[in-house]
Amino acid sequence: MSSDDCIFCKIVTGQIPATKIYEDEVILAFLDIGPVSDGHTLVVSRKHFERLHDCPEQFLGQISSSLGKIAKAVASAMDSDGYNVLCNNGKAAGQLVDHLHFHIIPRNTGDGLFDRWPAYKYEQGKIDEIAAKIRENL
Amino acid sequence: MSSDDCIFCKIVTGQIPATKIYEDEVILAFLDIGPVSDGHTLVVSRKHFERLHDCPEQFLGQISSSLGKIAKAVASAMDSDGYNVLCNNGKAAGQLVDHLHFHIIPRNTGDGLFDRWPAYKYEQGKIDEIAAKIRENL
Repeated sequence: MSSDDCIFCKIVTGQIPATKIYEDEVILAFLDIGPVSDGHTLVVSRKHFERLHDCPEQFLGQISSSLGKIAKAVASAMDSDGYNVLCNNGKAAGQLVDHLHFHIIPRNTGDGLFDRWPAYKYEQGKIDEIAAKIRENL
Repeated sequence: MSSDDCIFCKIVTGQIPATKIYEDEVILAFLDIGPVSDGHTLVVSRKHFERLHDCPEQFLGQISSSLGKIAKAVASAMDSDGYNVLCNNGKAAGQLVDHLHFHIIPRNTGDGLFDRWPAYKYEQGKIDEIAAKIRENL
């Protein structure tokens, strides 16, 4: 998707309206119109990057530095017990708009959101094999 | 939880072993021993902060800046179709260790992980009410 067709780029430039809660030089934060909990916020990079790994390190640092204060305000305003910060990358991971964004999702005890966590154990030796492969790619 | 009792602090100091894949001045990345997909990685702050919002902005920027390159290496090594970067804050949000950390979770099309996304619509007027509350807290 080019940035010309990108709905988040259009929100950043004001061509499409959004309910903004915060903005600075590098990010824009607004409420998701299809929330999974009240106060569900999207923090988007002003600049178009498809995936987290497309974003240069220094810039990613700038983008991410405000996530804590925004999440704190969202959680306080919603009087929530906690929150998730989630960045989906690729369709397989649930990314619906190909423009780098973080979800801030207020959570309450027992709300049943994301409560499936199908953890397993590696077979013997496999964890070292996988770690070696990842290190080769770093 | 004080940092003395913290399992991630003990991994950072080497008192508890872990299968490390990356480290620098501010973070340590290692494989989760209870993965939800092969290559599931934890990126932890060397310094003990309980929640994302406890971490000073500049420091959070430093911590986050490497997430892209680590995620790219994890996704490439696992030959995955995508990945989630997830930071749970508070027990209600699934945070099991009270030390700031990010999950990098490799994903494959149709793997069925985190596929429940119960989005809804706000009643008329509610989105503006919520946004106003959040802005007051920022």
